[in-house]
Amino acid sequence: MSTTPAAYPATDRTVPTRSRERASYDRAAVHSVLDAGYVCHLGFLRDGRPVVLPTLYARVGEQLYVHGSTGSRPLRTAGRAGSAGLPVCLTVTHVDGLVLARSAFHHSLNYRSAVVHGDAYAVADHDERTAALDAIVDHIVPGRSGDSRRANAKELAQTAVLRLAIEEVSVKLRTGGPNDEPEDRQLPYWTGVVPVAPVYGTPVPADDLAPGIETPGYLPAG
Amino acid sequence: MSTTPAAYPATDRTVPTRSRERASYDRAAVHSVLDAGYVCHLGFLRDGRPVVLPTLYARVGEQLYVHGSTGSRPLRTAGRAGSAGLPVCLTVTHVDGLVLARSAFHHSLNYRSAVVHGDAYAVADHDERTAALDAIVDHIVPGRSGDSRRANAKELAQTAVLRLAIEEVSVKLRTGGPNDEPEDRQLPYWTGVVPVAPVYGTPVPADDLAPGIETPGYLPAG
Repeated sequence: MSTTPAAYPATDRTVPTRSRERASYDRAAVHSVLDAGYVCHLGFLRDGRPVVLPTLYARVGEQLYVHGSTGSRPLRTAGRAGSAGLPVCLTVTHVDGLVLARSAFHHSLNYRSAVVHGDAYAVADHDERTAALDAIVDHIVPGRSGDSRRANAKELAQTAVLRLAIEEVSVKLRTGGPNDEPEDRQLPYWTGVVPVAPVYGTPVPADDLAPGIETPGYLPAG
Repeated sequence: MSTTPAAYPATDRTVPTRSRERASYDRAAVHSVLDAGYVCHLGFLRDGRPVVLPTLYARVGEQLYVHGSTGSRPLRTAGRAGSAGLPVCLTVTHVDGLVLARSAFHHSLNYRSAVVHGDAYAVADHDERTAALDAIVDHIVPGRSGDSRRANAKELAQTAVLRLAIEEVSVKLRTGGPNDEPEDRQLPYWTGVVPVAPVYGTPVPADDLAPGIETPGYLPAG
């Protein structure tokens, strides 16, 4: 696992990224954060109050697709073809390190996050729905959609797919070491960064895996 | 890293957990999910639209505390002592495994999540604020608050702390192997679970760490 070099200057910044202000829209940064994950936290309103649910997502170009089959009422409503857009906020966060300063106040995380605001719309088109579901599977495990049975008509009918354009989005990230106050530098506390990253273990075959099927090359080695 | 035994029966269930319905409030399950993390996704309204931001949090008994110093306007408003509560949804999610079924439709994640609904209130009391900040540091690294400089008056004044009671909360989790359709069992695709967990790397000392300060025992071994 890569570590955060302590010599790397600490930064805590927002990449201004409204697409309406193209000059400052750092598309590569936005895509990088979105493409590194597969679980987002989707916020919407229910009876006028905020609800935040973890959901699978995928990016296809400048569109995000989320699985709407959470059983929640607003998502079911937006899931009807022709209905109005559902105001949402889709947030993706990656934690890269625990930042331990000498002072409690300067404790922090190294992280990358993307926050996308907009209205989500139900996807009715068959081809777009199929492509979105493939993309969601491929976000979880790149290459997997081509090595599994595609959804049939009955399964497609049971799945709501929402589309959200990547238009109003901000990326925030922090990297580097702690930012202690100069007067704290002599305090007798350890200070530095503990790197953290998701690690994928040895694949565990299902009990009923047919004999002779090897672990695919797109999975971590056993 | 522990793996998901393939023989473990697949489950995907909601633990019904409104405290007003005590009989079904699985307090241990709620605490377990909340205590296993330190980053939540906090949803609130801004100009009538949902916003979801990643934030540090901690649990103390039946209260959650979040850092309100995100610079966002609604949090600053709620951060004023005496102001009305801020409607929020605080969600904590842990991903435990990638579930690869033979069909794209049955792809899923093993996960645990807690979704807490309520109104967040600014914490004005000095001792409660200090205890909350200690708890937030100790959620990141257990034992760390006692091995760092506590926040001083100026730092406390710069920090908004919000309190959210754990009253209306639901826990959802999925464990176990894929749930393929019986008619898919003979398809020639690998099926099983790829375990995933956050892994903490070798601590990286800050450049200016004073000589003679060893890596503390509460951090992962170097």
